[in-house]
Parts: sequence; structure tokens; C-alpha cells
Amino acid sequence: MTGILYGVGLGPGAADLMTLRAARLIENASVVAYPALAGGDSFARAIAADLIAPDAQEIIMDVPMTVERAPAQAAYDLGAAQIAAALDAGRDVVCLCEGDPFFYGSFMYLYARLADRYQVEVVPGVTSITACAARAGMPLAARNERLTVLPGPLPADELRARIDGAESVVIMKVGRHLPKIRTVIDALGLTDRAVYVERATLPQEIVLPLAQAPEKAPYFSMILLTKGADPWL
Amino acid sequence: MTGILYGVGLGPGAADLMTLRAARLIENASVVAYPALAGGDSFARAIAADLIAPDAQEIIMDVPMTVERAPAQAAYDLGAAQIAAALDAGRDVVCLCEGDPFFYGSFMYLYARLADRYQVEVVPGVTSITACAARAGMPLAARNERLTVLPGPLPADELRARIDGAESVVIMKVGRHLPKIRTVIDALGLTDRAVYVERATLPQEIVLPLAQAPEKAPYFSMILLTKGADPWL
Ligand SMILES: C[S@@+](CC[C@H](N)C(=O)[O-])C[C@H]1O[C@@H](n2cnc3c(N)ncnc32)[C@H](O)[C@@H]1O
Ligand SMILES: C[S@@+](CC[C@H](N)C(=O)[O-])C[C@H]1O[C@@H](n2cnc3c(N)ncnc32)[C@H](O)[C@@H]1O
Repeated sequence: MTGILYGVGLGPGAADLMTLRAARLIENASVVAYPALAGGDSFARAIAADLIAPDAQEIIMDVPMTVERAPAQAAYDLGAAQIAAALDAGRDVVCLCEGDPFFYGSFMYLYARLADRYQVEVVPGVTSITACAARAGMPLAARNERLTVLPGPLPADELRARIDGAESVVIMKVGRHLPKIRTVIDALGLTDRAVYVERATLPQEIVLPLAQAPEKAPYFSMILLTKGADPWL
Repeated sequence: MTGILYGVGLGPGAADLMTLRAARLIENASVVAYPALAGGDSFARAIAADLIAPDAQEIIMDVPMTVERAPAQAAYDLGAAQIAAALDAGRDVVCLCEGDPFFYGSFMYLYARLADRYQVEVVPGVTSITACAARAGMPLAARNERLTVLPGPLPADELRARIDGAESVVIMKVGRHLPKIRTVIDALGLTDRAVYVERATLPQEIVLPLAQAPEKAPYFSMILLTKGADPWL
């Protein structure tokens, strides 16, 4: 009997924004796996830390932050092989995923490598987009409004075109792309409708109108934008 | 001292996809409020049923399902007045919201009516979009892909244009709009990339390729669509 791979969403950061199902799976896990970015600490592990059994085996995927794909792919290849070994030995593996596993999450890379050979269950989690909206007091979308999610690394003209086509826009992965994104939103005359949110639901959280956002944004930041005079009445 | 209004996301349906924070707030609530559609049962109340204290006061907002706005607005006006009375009496109120409160949720209507006068805390929840993606085994968006969420009631030409502009598309509120949506997706040659999901995470769940979807869709159904040969590798 091979084990089951669980891809478990942990929510945006605050430990109690994890689901009851996620908490139960993590508490009972004898093998946990998680990514750690560029040799740093793992955000996913930090969210789940209090629930991981002291004697659980931990499979750490050290994912380099590079523009080329090959080094990250090698890290997921190695992680997938270690996870497969545990599954083959009949042990379940709980893979810890910040936010939701299938929403811009690295779990997709493991899913692509393992889902055809093993039973995989994905446990959805609270995404950063609704967590940021909650913290900003900014309803995301109502009624027949269109919502578009855009990654910050997209080129400026692409961002501009897509922002034009939706009532509500979320821009993820802001980081070093902040100046470019600000220029685009400014040119569209939408700066006063945009909010900047950094590390939502964590003690270091920052929520500010975009005009007052810091010069430098960390990776865990996002911009929310809603158009229309009063879209949710 | 006035009370605090909590807008609490319950997730997509399975009770254990609620967050730890939501469960704690509901267990301790002496006043809960929730919408019930068109005189029917409340889906939100059903998700939380096992946690609501037997002696909790329940404020039910009976929201009619009409195209005109006025009757629904009257229901939220009345609900907001009842909630305000409880808050004024110093009692906290926990408003139960299916999925996430700020993601196409009716809590926005209460928020618009009460947030300027009372302290409101929004507790984000797992949305139906990532729950459906998890159940369909269909990663939603990776890397620099654009994700667009579209409500099914939009006109066909609007749907067509917006589906064209994103790698991943989620169509909510399918219901009686299913034939129109199918025609649009067919015309774009994308039917074999689309999945139909009904009542995700509940015992009555249905997950099917769009081509095999039933003729009639209930309100709690959704279509997921991803383009590109293998977007998540
Ligand atoms: C690789 S994606 C992972 C998204 C995650 N799977 C989810 O469901 O939200 C990382 C991006 O998510 C956003 N993000 C995640 N957590 C966040 C938080 N607590 N506050 C603000 N943004 C966050 C940032 O835009 C960040 O660049
Ligand atoms: C008024 S919106 C509420 C969305 C909710 N606030 C959320 O965060 O997902 C209702 C729509 O959500 C979708 N939906 C909600 N729960 C669902 C489920 N369990 N399965 C499939 N679709 C669902 C359907 O498209 C439905 O028409």
C-alpha cells in the first residue's frame, strides 16, 4: 500500500486562518514536506510550526529564486523523488503550502510530477487575495463584476490592458516590480482606488493607500484595485 | 460599549474547510446572522450548524432572488437594522458567509450599511474557486499567468472577450446561464479544456468535463478553464 500525498493550503499567514482539515492533517503527519526559498526560512513551515509533531520527518525543498527555470525544476525533481520514496514506503506525506496549493503555489510542480503515479488530495486554503481584501476592508467583487488576478512581473503594457478590462484587479508578486506597477496605475488615473498590502494577517502587516506605499516592497505584498463609484452597494 | 460585527467566511461547504478562527468565533457567538435565499434553507447556516450554540439568537435575512435590486436591498436594510440593534446592546454579532465574505458574498451589503458606524472584522474563508480547482485536480494559475473570474450572467460577447484575455478562467453563478456559457466556450474551441463542478466538497458533489455536464446546472456550480498545453510544468 502506497501512501497518500496531501497538498495542504495553510492560508495567508496567521496560524488560525488554517482550515480545521489542514490542522488535523498536519497534527497527525509523520512526514511533512515544504519549500524554502533560496536557503531562507520556509514561510509555510512557520505557519504550521506549532502543529508539526516533534518526531515528524521533514522533507525540505530548497528552491532557488532565479529567472531561469532549470535550478528550481531540479529542486522540485529532488523533492518529488524524496516524497515518492516516503509514499512507496506506505507513509502519507503532508505538503505544506502557503495560501492555497493551486493558486500560484509551488505545490503545482509536485502535483505535475506525482499525480499520475500516486493518490493526491488537495486541501484548499484561504488565498492571499481574500485575506488582503479582508484586512484592507475592500470588498473584492460583487454581483456581475469581473475580477482579474495579474502577476506583477508581467510587462507594463500587458498590465495596462488587463487592468482596463475588469472592475476589480489584484496584482500579486509585487516586490521589485512596484515602481513599474505604480506607473501603470498612475497613468490610468486609478492610484486613489488602489491599496497596498504587505504580509497580511501577520504581526508585521502593512495596509496603506497605494500613494503612501513604501518605496521598496517585499515579495509578500499585493495591490488591490476596485473601480466604480461604489461597486458593492 | 457597542459590539463587534464579524463577517465570517465558512468555506465552500464541507464543515472542516472552515478556518480555526471561524470555528472559534461561531462556537462562542451569542448572536449569529445569515442570509437565506428566497425562503429556502440557508447554505451558510447548514455549514456552521454543528457549532452554533443552541441558545444563540439567530438573525435570518430572507433574500428574494429577483433581477430587480429593491427587494433584496430591503432585506439587507432590515437585517442591518436587526444587527445594529444587537451591536448597540453591546453584543457581538457573527455573520455567517458561505466561502469568503468579500468574494461575491452578500456580506458586502451589510458591510456597506454598517462599517462606518460599527467595528467590523472580516475573517477570510476558502473561496469556491480554489475548492473547485482542488476537487477537479486542476491547478488554477501558476507563475505569470493571468486569472480572470467572470460571473455567468454577463452577456455572451463580454464573456467571449474576457475568456480570450486570460490563461485561466473561472465562471461563477452558472445556473440557468449554462447553455449560453457552453456556446461561448465551444465557439472558442475550448470545451475540451473546461471542467464543470457542482456543489464542490459536499456529498452531492459533481465534477465532469464540460462536454459531459448535465443540461441543467444549479446555482452552486462553476466552470473552470485553463489554456496552454501544460501550464504548470
Ligand atoms: C507564489 S504566490 C503564492 C500565493 C498563495 N498560494 C496564495 O494562495 O495566496 C506569492 C504571492 O502571494 C502574495 N501573498 C501571499 N501571502 C501574502 C500575504 N500574507 N500578504 C500579502 N501578499 C501575500 C504575494 O503577492 C506574493 O508575491
Ligand atoms: C454569490 S457567489 C458566493 C461565492 C462565495 N462567497 C465564495 O467565496 O466562493 C455564489 C456562487 O459561488 C459558486 N459556488 C459557491 N460554492 C460552491 C460550491 N460548493 N461548488 C461550486 N460552486 C460554488 C457558484 O458559482 C455560485 O453561483
